[in-house]
Amino acid sequence: MLFFVNDYGEGAHEAVLAHLAETNREHLTGYGSDPYTARAKEKILAAAGCPDGDVYFLSGGTQTNETVISAYLRTWEGAVACETGHIAVHEAGAIEHSGHKVLTVPAHDGKMDAAELDAYLAAFFTDGNHEHMVFPGLVYLSYPTEYGTLYTKDELAALSAAAHKYGLPLYLDGARLGYGLASPACDLTLPDIAALADVFYIGGTKVGALCGEAVVFPHGAPAHFLTHVKQHGALMAKGRLLGVQFDALFTDGLYFSISRHAIDMAMKLKQVFLDKGYPLYIDSPTNQQFVILTQAEAEEIAEYAQFEVWEPCGGGRMVVRFAVSWATEAADIDALAAILPEK
Amino acid sequence: MLFFVNDYGEGAHEAVLAHLAETNREHLTGYGSDPYTARAKEKILAAAGCPDGDVYFLSGGTQTNETVISAYLRTWEGAVACETGHIAVHEAGAIEHSGHKVLTVPAHDGKMDAAELDAYLAAFFTDGNHEHMVFPGLVYLSYPTEYGTLYTKDELAALSAAAHKYGLPLYLDGARLGYGLASPACDLTLPDIAALADVFYIGGTKVGALCGEAVVFPHGAPAHFLTHVKQHGALMAKGRLLGVQFDALFTDGLYFSISRHAIDMAMKLKQVFLDKGYPLYIDSPTNQQFVILTQAEAEEIAEYAQFEVWEPCGGGRMVVRFAVSWATEAADIDALAAILPEK
Amino acid sequence: MLFFVNDYGEGAHEAVLAHLAETNREHLTGYGSDPYTARAKEKILAAAGCPDGDVYFLSGGTQTNETVISAYLRTWEGAVACETGHIAVHEAGAIEHSGHKVLTVPAHDGKMDAAELDAYLAAFFTDGNHEHMVFPGLVYLSYPTEYGTLYTKDELAALSAAAHKYGLPLYLDGARLGYGLASPACDLTLPDIAALADVFYIGGTKVGALCGEAVVFPHGAPAHFLTHVKQHGALMAKGRLLGVQFDALFTDGLYFSISRHAIDMAMKLKQVFLDKGYPLYIDSPTNQQFVILTQAEAEEIAEYAQFEVWEPCGGGRMVVRFAVSWATEAADIDALAAILPEK
Amino acid sequence: MLFFVNDYGEGAHEAVLAHLAETNREHLTGYGSDPYTARAKEKILAAAGCPDGDVYFLSGGTQTNETVISAYLRTWEGAVACETGHIAVHEAGAIEHSGHKVLTVPAHDGKMDAAELDAYLAAFFTDGNHEHMVFPGLVYLSYPTEYGTLYTKDELAALSAAAHKYGLPLYLDGARLGYGLASPACDLTLPDIAALADVFYIGGTKVGALCGEAVVFPHGAPAHFLTHVKQHGALMAKGRLLGVQFDALFTDGLYFSISRHAIDMAMKLKQVFLDKGYPLYIDSPTNQQFVILTQAEAEEIAEYAQFEVWEPCGGGRMVVRFAVSWATEAADIDALAAILPEK
Repeated sequence: MLFFVNDYGEGAHEAVLAHLAETNREHLTGYGSDPYTARAKEKILAAAGCPDGDVYFLSGGTQTNETVISAYLRTWEGAVACETGHIAVHEAGAIEHSGHKVLTVPAHDGKMDAAELDAYLAAFFTDGNHEHMVFPGLVYLSYPTEYGTLYTKDELAALSAAAHKYGLPLYLDGARLGYGLASPACDLTLPDIAALADVFYIGGTKVGALCGEAVVFPHGAPAHFLTHVKQHGALMAKGRLLGVQFDALFTDGLYFSISRHAIDMAMKLKQVFLDKGYPLYIDSPTNQQFVILTQAEAEEIAEYAQFEVWEPCGGGRMVVRFAVSWATEAADIDALAAILPEK
Repeated sequence: MLFFVNDYGEGAHEAVLAHLAETNREHLTGYGSDPYTARAKEKILAAAGCPDGDVYFLSGGTQTNETVISAYLRTWEGAVACETGHIAVHEAGAIEHSGHKVLTVPAHDGKMDAAELDAYLAAFFTDGNHEHMVFPGLVYLSYPTEYGTLYTKDELAALSAAAHKYGLPLYLDGARLGYGLASPACDLTLPDIAALADVFYIGGTKVGALCGEAVVFPHGAPAHFLTHVKQHGALMAKGRLLGVQFDALFTDGLYFSISRHAIDMAMKLKQVFLDKGYPLYIDSPTNQQFVILTQAEAEEIAEYAQFEVWEPCGGGRMVVRFAVSWATEAADIDALAAILPEK
Repeated sequence: MLFFVNDYGEGAHEAVLAHLAETNREHLTGYGSDPYTARAKEKILAAAGCPDGDVYFLSGGTQTNETVISAYLRTWEGAVACETGHIAVHEAGAIEHSGHKVLTVPAHDGKMDAAELDAYLAAFFTDGNHEHMVFPGLVYLSYPTEYGTLYTKDELAALSAAAHKYGLPLYLDGARLGYGLASPACDLTLPDIAALADVFYIGGTKVGALCGEAVVFPHGAPAHFLTHVKQHGALMAKGRLLGVQFDALFTDGLYFSISRHAIDMAMKLKQVFLDKGYPLYIDSPTNQQFVILTQAEAEEIAEYAQFEVWEPCGGGRMVVRFAVSWATEAADIDALAAILPEK
Repeated sequence: MLFFVNDYGEGAHEAVLAHLAETNREHLTGYGSDPYTARAKEKILAAAGCPDGDVYFLSGGTQTNETVISAYLRTWEGAVACETGHIAVHEAGAIEHSGHKVLTVPAHDGKMDAAELDAYLAAFFTDGNHEHMVFPGLVYLSYPTEYGTLYTKDELAALSAAAHKYGLPLYLDGARLGYGLASPACDLTLPDIAALADVFYIGGTKVGALCGEAVVFPHGAPAHFLTHVKQHGALMAKGRLLGVQFDALFTDGLYFSISRHAIDMAMKLKQVFLDKGYPLYIDSPTNQQFVILTQAEAEEIAEYAQFEVWEPCGGGRMVVRFAVSWATEAADIDALAAILPEK
C-alpha cells in the first residue's frame, strides 16, 4: 500500500535518530537547560539572521499556536486568521479554551489578502461599537497555508505592514516551513521571515523530527515565557528530546536539504496527476497536492494508495490530498505512476 | 561529576530507543491510531487487570494532570490535593488556567490522610455557605508522593472510600509509578491501583522513556476525551512516538524491571548516607532520597556530585534531594561512597 | 431632542419603582432567597406554563448569555449562533472568555434557518476530522433577533427539532422577548417558547426594569447553577432588587401590556417613515426599526432626534436604527412626524 | 423578628431611591455614558483626592473582584490574599475561573501582616524553582476585613510598600469601606487609601445602594477596561442605575453619614453583648460583631433575632455574626437588649 495520507507518517530522519542515540546516556539537566538545546537555538538564530532573538522548543503545532498566541494577547483581544486557518478550524477550540476569539477574514486558496486585512482592521477601529467587540490583537498566518499555497515576499511584507499599522504582531505558523522555503515558487528566505514576522515557528514534526517545533522570537520572547509554557502544559522535562533533534536538523543544512527532497517528490507527484489528466483543485507549489477525483476514482485508487479525503466539491466529486514528506521515496511516486490509470 | 539531580537526566532505555529505530520507517497513521499504540494499550490494560478500560498517551506530567483533571471537573468544581501536591505548587497554575481551584488539605510527609480528607469533605457539604464556595470535584494523589513516600494498600483504600463516599473520582498521579510499585515498602499492585483509582497515569518520562505518560481509565474515559486532549494541546500528530515507547516498556516487564533496578540503586544510595552519618529528612522507600546537609557540606559535595536543593530546614541547614533512576549505575553510587566524607 | 437611540434609555416602569419603594425597608435574606423572588418565579412559571421549571434572575444580557451557555457546555463544545448573533459580535468575547467557541451559521435578516442548521450539524458529525474540531453543544437564537425580526412558531419548532435531533439544547435569548410576543406578527405564546426551548430568558432591562433578566428552565436548571452563577460574578447579594421588579412586571400582565404599548409606538413610527417615503432596511415587526438614510438626511435628522447608526449600506447610504420602548410616548412619534421632511 | 443576618438585608437609602425616582424618565444614553454617572465619578474622585483618576461602576463584589484582578494579571500571575480573604473562600472560584490562582498568606484576625507578605514574596523570587510556580502579580486586601477588623495607616503603608517593593499593585476590596472609614478605630481617610492602593472599590451594595460598587483607579484604569468589563458580563446597559445611586451617595457626604450611623449602632450592639457577659470572638471596630455562643444560647436567641452562624469554635460553641448597617435602627438594638438574658 502506497502512503500519501499525511506528512507525519514516519518517525524521524536517520541523522536525528542517530543524534538522539549518541547523546542518550549523557546526563543533562532538564527543561531545555542542556547544551544541545543551547546549540540548537544558536544554529536556528544564525540561520534566521537574528542572533539576538530567542528560541523555545515545544512539542506540537496546536500546543505551540495556543501557547504563543495567548502569550501575546490580553483578555479583551483575539487573533485574526483566515477562515480556513488551522486555529480557526482544526484545533478543537484550543485558542478559545485559553479565552480568546479567533476573528476571521476571507481566505483565497488558503491565503489572507493584505488589503482585506487592512480593511477589516480599519472597520473595527472606526466602528462606533468596537468597545463592545473583541479587539484584534495579533495576526495569524500559515506558511505554507493549509492548502499548500505560499505568500510571495511582497504579499508577506504587505501583511506585515497592515498588521503593524494597527500595532498588531504578526505570527507565522510554520508547521511545514521547510516545505515552503524549499519550493521553487518561494522568493522568501528564513531571514526574510524573521524580518517580517514578530514570532514564527519552524515545524519539526512534519519535517524530519519525531516531534517538536522551534518558536523563534526575532526580537526576544515575551516576559516569563518559560512559566507561560509550563502553565500551558508544554514544557518538556526532557527538553533534550527537542534540543538534540533540532541540533541535528540545523547541522549542515539538513532541515533544508530534506525539505528540498520532499518538494522534488511533490513536483514529481503533481506531474503524474497532470500527465494522467486528473484536475488539480489548487496548483500547490509545496508538499501537499490537492486533486479532484470522482467517487469511483477515489475508491479504485484507495485499493493501492492511502490519501486523505479533504472536502466534497460538487457534482459528486471530492477534493483529496496526497501528501509527501522528507520520507517519501522516488520509488513510491514511480509505483503510483505505474498503476494510476489515465483519466 | 556524579549526577543525582533528577530522574529525567538521560534519554530512553536502550530497548525503547531500539523499538523507535526499528519501526522508524513504517508508514503509520497519526494521533495514536497506529497498531503499536493499540498494542501498548492492550499490554497496559492487561498489566493493570482492567481489559475493558481505556488508555491515552500524553507527553508530560503537567499536561496530563491538567488535561485529565479538567475533563472530570465541571466549572464549579475544584481538585482536592495535598498542600505539597505537584498541582498545588509546581505546575505554574496549569489547573487554575483551566478554570479550577486546587483545594488543599494538609500533607504528612507528602501524604494525604483519609480521615482528614473525610473531615474536609464533610465540613464542606455541611457548611451553610458551601454554595458560595468551590465544590470539591476530584481527589488528586501522587504515588509515590513528591517526597518519595508511599501509601499502603489500606491507606489508599481508605482514601478511595472517602472520595467515593462523596461521589468524587480518585485520580492518582503516577509520574514515578514504577518506582513506587518496585519499592520493597510497597504492598500494592498495578491491578490494586486500577481497582481503587478512577483514573491514574503510568509515568514514562521518569521511567525509561524519552517522554510520555499513559493515562489509564479502568472504567473507560470521559466522553470525547480525544477532542479534549486536542483542545489542550496534548494530542501528538506522531502518536507512534508514545505508542512505540510504551509498547517496548510493557514488553517482557521492562517497565517493572528497570524500576526495580532504580530502587536497588536508591537503597544502596540511602545506605551510603546512613553509613556516613548523614541524617535523612524523610525515610523514603523510593528513588528520591532527601538528605539534610549543612551549607558547608552541600558546597563540598557539589564539587563532585550534582543534586537539587529542596528547601531550607532551619539552623542554616537544608534539605537536598538525590535522585536515581533506571539509568543510574551501581558504579555511580560506589563513586559517591568512595568520596563522601563521614560526617 | 427626541430619543430613539435604544430601548434602555429610561429607568423603570413606575409600578416597578413603586414596588421597590414599598418593599424597601423590609428585612429580607439575600441571594434571591426572599419571598418576593419566590413569588416572581412562581408567576413567571405560571405565565410560561411550566410550573415545575426553575427561574433564576441575573442582572444583564451578556452576563446571562455567558453564564447560561457555559453551564450547558463541556470544554470541547461551542455554541451555534447566527453570524449576526449578539454573542457572536457584540459581547466582547464573553463566550470565548469562558472557554467556548461561537460556531456560526448564516443569518437571514438576523434569523437562523432550520435546514441550514440541520445541514451544518450533519456535516459536522460526518466530517472525518470532527474529533479535531469544536463540537456543537447548544443552539443559540435571539427572539426577536438583533434585526427586530421574529421566528414563526413553525420556524422555531423546526429549529428546536433540528437541535434536538443532534442532542443539543436550544437556548433563546429574549432580551426583547416582550416586544416579540406583543407583535402582531407573532404567532407564538410564552408557553410555546417554554415547550420548544430548553432554556430562555425574559428580558427585563429593555422591558420596564432597571436591570434584570429572568432565566427560565422549563425542565429544571443544571446542577449547582447557583454556584455557577456566583462563580461568574452574576449573583446579586440583594437578590430582592431583581425579584421585586419581576414580581411587579408579572403582576396583572404588566410585562405584556407595556410591551404592547411599545409595539403600538413602533408601528406608528414605521408608518411615519413609510408615509414620508423613507425606505426600510428590514420590515421589522418589533420595537426596533431600521431605516435607510443618506448622509445628508442623517445629519439633518440628528439635529432634532437621536438614533443609532447601524452599518453602512453602499452608495454612501447607511442603515440607522430607531428604537422605541415601553417608555416611548405617542407625542414623541407625533413630534417626529411633524418635523421629518418628505423624502 | 429582629434582623442582624447581614448588611444587605434592606433596599436603598431613601435619598438614593428618591434620586432614582426623580431621574427615572430622563432619556439617558447607556453603559455609563450619562451625566449622572459622570457627576458621580467626579464627586468620588474629589472625595478621594485624586481628580485625575478613573472610576468605573460595577454591580456586585465578586464580579468587581474578578474583573479588576484579571485586568491586572497576566496569565502566569496570581493574586496574593489572606487565607480568609473573600476571593480565597467565598467567591465560588471566580478568580480561578478567570485563570488565576489565589496565593495565600496567613491571616491574623483576618489581616495580612506586612512582614509576612514581604517574606513570602522574597521567598518566591529567590526560590530556584519559581519559574515553575505561579508568580505573585497583585496583592488583595479587604478593608474592613471579613472579620470586621481594620488596618492602621501604618499597617496599610507597610503592606503597600511591601507590594510595591516587588512591583505588585495593591488592590483593596472595600465592600464595607464606609463602615471602616467611619469607625472610631480608623486613622485613615479616603485620600490615604487612594495614595496607598493602586486600585480599590467603594462598596455601595452594603452601604446604602440597591447594588453597585465604585472602582477607583487613582492613577488611571488599565487599557480598554470598558471592554474587559463588558467581556466579564459586568457592563450594565442602564449604567444610570449605578451612576444615579452613587451621585446620591456622594452628595452632601451621605455615604459617610450613613456609615457613621451604622457604626454607632454597631458599638451600641457590642455594648449589649459585653454588658450581658457574652464573649466576643474578635473585638471588631466595625459593623460586623462576632460573638461566641453555646448551642443552647444560639437556639434561644434565634427565636427572636436572626443572625448568621459563622464557624464552630470548639467545646460545642460557635462563632456567630450579628451585622448592622445604615438601615439598622436604635430601636432594634434596644429591643435586643431588652430580651437578651444575662449570661
